Amino acid sequence: MNIMRVVRDLVTTQRVSGLQARPLRVLEDARGNFEVAVDAVGARVGDFVITIAYSSARIATGDPRVTTDLTIGGIIDDWDEDKWHGPARAGT
Amino acid sequence: MNIMRVVRDLVTTQRVSGLQARPLRVLEDARGNFEVAVDAVGARVGDFVITIAYSSARIATGDPRVTTDLTIGGIIDDWDEDKWHGPARAGT
Amino acid sequence: MNIMRVVRDLVTTQRVSGLQARPLRVLEDARGNFEVAVDAVGARVGDFVITIAYSSARIATGDPRVTTDLTIGGIIDDWDEDKWHGPARAGT
Amino acid sequence: MNIMRVVRDLVTTQRVSGLQARPLRVLEDARGNFEVAVDAVGARVGDFVITIAYSSARIATGDPRVTTDLTIGGIIDDWDEDKWHGPARAGT
Amino acid sequence: MNIMRVVRDLVTTQRVSGLQARPLRVLEDARGNFEVAVDAVGARVGDFVITIAYSSARIATGDPRVTTDLTIGGIIDDWDEDKWHGPARAGT
Repeated sequence: MNIMRVVRDLVTTQRVSGLQARPLRVLEDARGNFEVAVDAVGARVGDFVITIAYSSARIATGDPRVTTDLTIGGIIDDWDEDKWHGPARAGT
Repeated sequence: MNIMRVVRDLVTTQRVSGLQARPLRVLEDARGNFEVAVDAVGARVGDFVITIAYSSARIATGDPRVTTDLTIGGIIDDWDEDKWHGPARAGT
Repeated sequence: MNIMRVVRDLVTTQRVSGLQARPLRVLEDARGNFEVAVDAVGARVGDFVITIAYSSARIATGDPRVTTDLTIGGIIDDWDEDKWHGPARAGT
Repeated sequence: MNIMRVVRDLVTTQRVSGLQARPLRVLEDARGNFEVAVDAVGARVGDFVITIAYSSARIATGDPRVTTDLTIGGIIDDWDEDKWHGPARAGT
Repeated sequence: MNIMRVVRDLVTTQRVSGLQARPLRVLEDARGNFEVAVDAVGARVGDFVITIAYSSARIATGDPRVTTDLTIGGIIDDWDEDKWHGPARAGT
């Protein structure tokens, strides 16, 4: 799983039926790369979250028929810019 | 899922039967790398789309027997070059 | 799926039974990185092909028991060095 | 599987039910990138561990319904900074 | 599948039961990055091997319950430093 930050909502009026009407969020990783995830926990813009990928992403939505490959699996209680970008060892 | 742009169609007369006659599109990501996806939504060249990978790609086509590992899952309503390449934070 | 070029055959006398006697090819991507794939379409050295990865690679061989993670899924009719390395936009 | 080092615990009060109450650890790889894994072996901060990804991560927890994509699969008996960062050949 | 070289054995006394007592090897790729694989073919240090990843890694061990994500699938008969690091085209 990865640590990412919620950047914005994503609207796709034209989508495959397998995505149902699930809310999609644009996320960024520590290097500023974007990915898109189904939100299963009600995350808000700015939240640091963990993402679940691959086949587990489907199951994590609560309905394994949802054809996502990335799902927000949790909101991190205690994370910030320093932990994200600073040296790992300093945070232990 | 990733955000990619449709670059062109791809023709493969000689292909495995598992791909059926599904239309293939060449996509590029924000860094100009190419990938090839089955198009399940009728995207056009220039559209910004979201892509679904791994085993979910098969199910997203509507027929889980289609042996793809990447499927266009939706056309993004509101995306452009600035959102794609600009700093994520500026867009929130 | 990715666009790769066939570089050479690969011989592995000692192999797991799950690979059966399937022909293996060394492929290179646009950056010169190598990967090895089961050839399910009869590709020749120099051909540009599309590759199918993950669990779909098994099904794409025609026998889902073949324990590959990458299978050549088709030979591209119209691709060349310029399309591969040139700017994507120029080709649209 | 990858070799990673345990950096800290991760608390997510708000999480999908599929993660159950499994303990999560932040890990770093040899380049300092973070990933988050379910801990199935009782690893401590500083331990070098091997991580199991993809669908195998679920099964490795002992309960295939756990919706993780990364699980700590073992604690390495004999590993250190030199083996991790030094040239591989020197260690053989 | 990837081409990797066997670097050393890896001992994990404390491991998940899903890995059984399968032998683990540390492998390096052409850039010196390490990965860990279950050895299903009896490879020796220095051998060039092909690796099978994802769900196929489990099946390739001969027992799909083995919770690995990477398995050595074969020993390459004819590979060396020059083929690995040299330009691909020179080897065709």
